[in-house]
Amino acid sequence: MSDAKEAIEYAHANHERFLKELSEFIKIESISTDDDYKASVTNAAEWAAEHLRKIGIENVKLMDTGGHPVMYGDFLKNPGAPTVLVYGHYDVQPVDPIELWDTPPFETTVKGDYIFGRGTSDMKGQVMATLNAVEAIMKTGDFPVNLKFLLEGEEEIGSKNMKEFLKKYGEHFKADFCLNPDAGAISADEPTITFGLRGLAYFEMHVSGPAQDLHSGLFGGTVHNPAQALTELVAGMHDANGTITLPGFYDSVRVVTDKEREETAKLPTTPESYLKQTGVPALWGEKEYTPALRTGARPTLEVNGLLSGWTGPGSKTVLPAKAMAKISCRLVPDQDPNEVYNQLVKYMEMNAPKTIKWEIRRLHDSPWAITDVDNNGIRAMAAAMESVWGRQPLYRREGGSIGVVAMLQNICGVESGLVGGGLPDDNVHSPNEHMHLPTWHKNMDAFIHFFFNMK
Amino acid sequence: MSDAKEAIEYAHANHERFLKELSEFIKIESISTDDDYKASVTNAAEWAAEHLRKIGIENVKLMDTGGHPVMYGDFLKNPGAPTVLVYGHYDVQPVDPIELWDTPPFETTVKGDYIFGRGTSDMKGQVMATLNAVEAIMKTGDFPVNLKFLLEGEEEIGSKNMKEFLKKYGEHFKADFCLNPDAGAISADEPTITFGLRGLAYFEMHVSGPAQDLHSGLFGGTVHNPAQALTELVAGMHDANGTITLPGFYDSVRVVTDKEREETAKLPTTPESYLKQTGVPALWGEKEYTPALRTGARPTLEVNGLLSGWTGPGSKTVLPAKAMAKISCRLVPDQDPNEVYNQLVKYMEMNAPKTIKWEIRRLHDSPWAITDVDNNGIRAMAAAMESVWGRQPLYRREGGSIGVVAMLQNICGVESGLVGGGLPDDNVHSPNEHMHLPTWHKNMDAFIHFFFNMK
Repeated sequence: MSDAKEAIEYAHANHERFLKELSEFIKIESISTDDDYKASVTNAAEWAAEHLRKIGIENVKLMDTGGHPVMYGDFLKNPGAPTVLVYGHYDVQPVDPIELWDTPPFETTVKGDYIFGRGTSDMKGQVMATLNAVEAIMKTGDFPVNLKFLLEGEEEIGSKNMKEFLKKYGEHFKADFCLNPDAGAISADEPTITFGLRGLAYFEMHVSGPAQDLHSGLFGGTVHNPAQALTELVAGMHDANGTITLPGFYDSVRVVTDKEREETAKLPTTPESYLKQTGVPALWGEKEYTPALRTGARPTLEVNGLLSGWTGPGSKTVLPAKAMAKISCRLVPDQDPNEVYNQLVKYMEMNAPKTIKWEIRRLHDSPWAITDVDNNGIRAMAAAMESVWGRQPLYRREGGSIGVVAMLQNICGVESGLVGGGLPDDNVHSPNEHMHLPTWHKNMDAFIHFFFNMK
Repeated sequence: MSDAKEAIEYAHANHERFLKELSEFIKIESISTDDDYKASVTNAAEWAAEHLRKIGIENVKLMDTGGHPVMYGDFLKNPGAPTVLVYGHYDVQPVDPIELWDTPPFETTVKGDYIFGRGTSDMKGQVMATLNAVEAIMKTGDFPVNLKFLLEGEEEIGSKNMKEFLKKYGEHFKADFCLNPDAGAISADEPTITFGLRGLAYFEMHVSGPAQDLHSGLFGGTVHNPAQALTELVAGMHDANGTITLPGFYDSVRVVTDKEREETAKLPTTPESYLKQTGVPALWGEKEYTPALRTGARPTLEVNGLLSGWTGPGSKTVLPAKAMAKISCRLVPDQDPNEVYNQLVKYMEMNAPKTIKWEIRRLHDSPWAITDVDNNGIRAMAAAMESVWGRQPLYRREGGSIGVVAMLQNICGVESGLVGGGLPDDNVHSPNEHMHLPTWHKNMDAFIHFFFNMK
C-alpha cells in the first residue's frame, strides 16, 4: 500500500531529474502553427510517449488525426475504480518576436523561483507536473485509479482536427473525469478551479485595391489606400465603449447574472491587478462590466496582427496594393463560431467601400465551454488543493480557449477539471515565457492527492 | 561644327551599347534607404563618375554630403554661352515585395518595347538618356553650351542632406537652367513639362500598450489592443469624403484657381485613365476635385506601411504590445513640413486615448516646388519636344516630390525644367518597374535638340 505522503516525498526527492526532463521536453521546438516545425512537433509526441512508457504506462501510441498526432496511453489495472483521463498538449506557440527574449526560448534557464522557456507554463511544464505525479505514485506503490492519456499537438492551432478525431475514436477516451492542467491559477497563493472557458474564431482579413503597389505621389489622393481602408474597417468593429459592432454579435451571448457578478467581485482579479500585470497606462473595455467579467464572461474581438506595405527601416513612398489583419474573437455561451463568421462577413458587406476588394479567411475555431463543478472529480481536486494550500480553491471563468473541453463533454460525455500551475504573469504566448517552480511543485503534490482522493 | 541630326544618328547607332551600359548601372543595388546597401550606393556614384569621365566630362568627383555622396562634373569650354546643370539621382527604391517581381530586379530584362529592372524608369534610365545625349553631341562635334552635373544618392530618402550641402557648396552648381529628367510624362505620345511638384513629410507612428505581448484570451477585453488603437487613430485621419482631419492641415493650402481647373481639365489624365492604370474597382478622394487635381494640387496623407503582432502563416492568439504605421503626407504650396509635423502631433494629442502610449518620429521632409515656365530653358525644351513628337508639350502639376527643385530655386536661384521619359504605368517604387524604350530614345533625341536650342 502506498499513500500520498510517500509519493510526495518521492516527487520532492526527484526535483532535479524532473527539471532535467522538463528541459529535454522544452528543447523540442514543437511550434504547431508553422509547417517548418512539423517534424519537431512529432518528435515532441514521441518524446512524451517514450516518457510514459518509462514510468509504466501501457499501450502508448501515436494516433493519426490528419494533422499533428494524438498521443494515447493507459493504465487500467483497477477494475471497478474510476478512470481519470489526463489531458495535455505538447505543442507550443511561435517564439516571435525572438529579439525580445532574454534567454534562448528552447533552452530552459532557471532564475530564482522561475524557469524560462517556450512551453514552460503553456503547457509542457504542466504536462510534466502531471506525469511526475503519476510517476511518484507508480514508483511508491499501487496506482489507486485507472488512467488514460490524451496528449495533443494542435491546441495552439485550435485543436482543429480534434472534433473529427474524437468522433472516430471517442470510445478510447471514455473516462469518469478529465484532469486538464491547462487552465492556470489566479496567483501562486490562490488555488483555482476554472469552470468557464471562452471559445475562439480566428480570421484573416485581406483588403486589396490596385493591381500592384503604386507610387504614393502619383496616385495618392485618387486611390483608396488599402492600408487606410483596412484601418477604417478594423476601427469600426468597436464603438467608443469597446462594444463590438458586428451585426448580431451579442444576440447569443448569455446575460451575466447578478449571482455571477457577485461571485466574480470576490475574486482578487481587480483593476489594479490587471494594471500591474500588463503595465498599460489605463484599462479599457465595456464600462458596464468589471475587468474579470470582460475577460471571462464577455466576448472580444482582437487584432492579432497587421501587415501592409513597407515595414523595414526608413521610408518608402509606396501606396500598398494590399493590407492584411489577423482578427480573432473570444466567444462565450451561446455564441457559435459559424455565426460569428457570418456576422463578420455581414459587417464587411455593410461597411466595405466599393473602392476596395476584400476577403475574410477562416483560420480556426474553438468552442466555448462551461464545466459542471458538482461532481466527484472536482470535489477530489478541491480537497487535494486544500491539503496542499490549506485553503479552498477559488472558482472562476477564464478568458482563454481550450477547444477539447467542450468536445470531450459533447462527444465523450466527460467533464474536465480545469486547473494548472500557470500564473497570469507567466508571459504565455509572449517572449520570456516562464513558470513559477514552487507553484509547479504544489500542483504536483495536489495531483498526487487528487489521484488518491478519486479512489 | 556639329548639329542635332548628326548627334541623333550617333545615338541611334549606339542603341545596343547604351542598353548594355544602362544594365551595368542597374546592376548596382543602390538602395539608399537601407544601410546594408551603403557600399553599393557609393559604387553607383563611382560608376556614374567613371562614365562621365569616359564621355569627356571634366573635374568629375564625389562630394561628401554627410550621407550618400553627390557626384559633380563639368564641361565649361564655352565662355559666354549658357550653363546647363544636369540633375539626376543614382539611388533607387527597395525591391520588396521581391516575390512579386517576374524578373530579377537588378538584372535588366528586355521584353518587346520595355526594359525591366529597379531604377529603369526612376531614374537610372533617365540619367543615362541624358548622358547618352551629351555623349552623342560630344562625339560628333563641339558641345554648344556649358555643362555641370549634380547626381545625388539620396533622392529616394528625401534628399535629406541636400539643403545643407547646397548651402555650403551652392556656388559649384550655379547655372542658367537645370535639366531635371526625373518628372516623367503623361503618356508616350504626350510630351510633358511639369511645373508643380508636391512636397513630402514622412513619419513613423508608434503605438504601445502592455509591457510585452499578452495572451489575447487572458487580457482581451481589458487592455486596449495597440493594433486596434492604431487603426482607430489612422482611420480618423480622413473623413468620409477623403478630406484630411489633422487640425489646420489645409490652412496654408493655396486655393485651386478657376484657371487651373480649366487647364487641368484639358489634360488626358481622366478618371478612366486612372482606373485603367491602377486596376482599382473605383476611384476615391475629395469629390470637389478631379483626380488630376487631387494628385497634383491637393495634399494627401497616405499609409505606406503597417506592422503589428503576428504576421506569419497561421494563427497566434497574441494581443500585441505595439503597432507601427508609416505615414506620409504629400504637400502643396504653401504647406510647411514642420507645420504638418505639429499638426500630426496635435491630432494625436487630441485623439489618442489614455489607454495607450504613442510616439511620432519624423523620417524625412521634402519641400513642394512650383517652377517658372517663362524662361529660355523651358522654351528650348518645348521646342525640342515639338521637333521630336511634332506637337507642343502639355504642362501639368505632378503628385510626386523632388526635393532638390525647391532647394536649387531658393539656394542657387536656378529654375528647373522637369521632364523625363518615365510613364505613369512604369511601376516606379513597385515590383516589375520598367521603362518604355521608344520613349527613352525620343527623350534622348529631345535632349540633343534641347542643348542646341539653348545655345
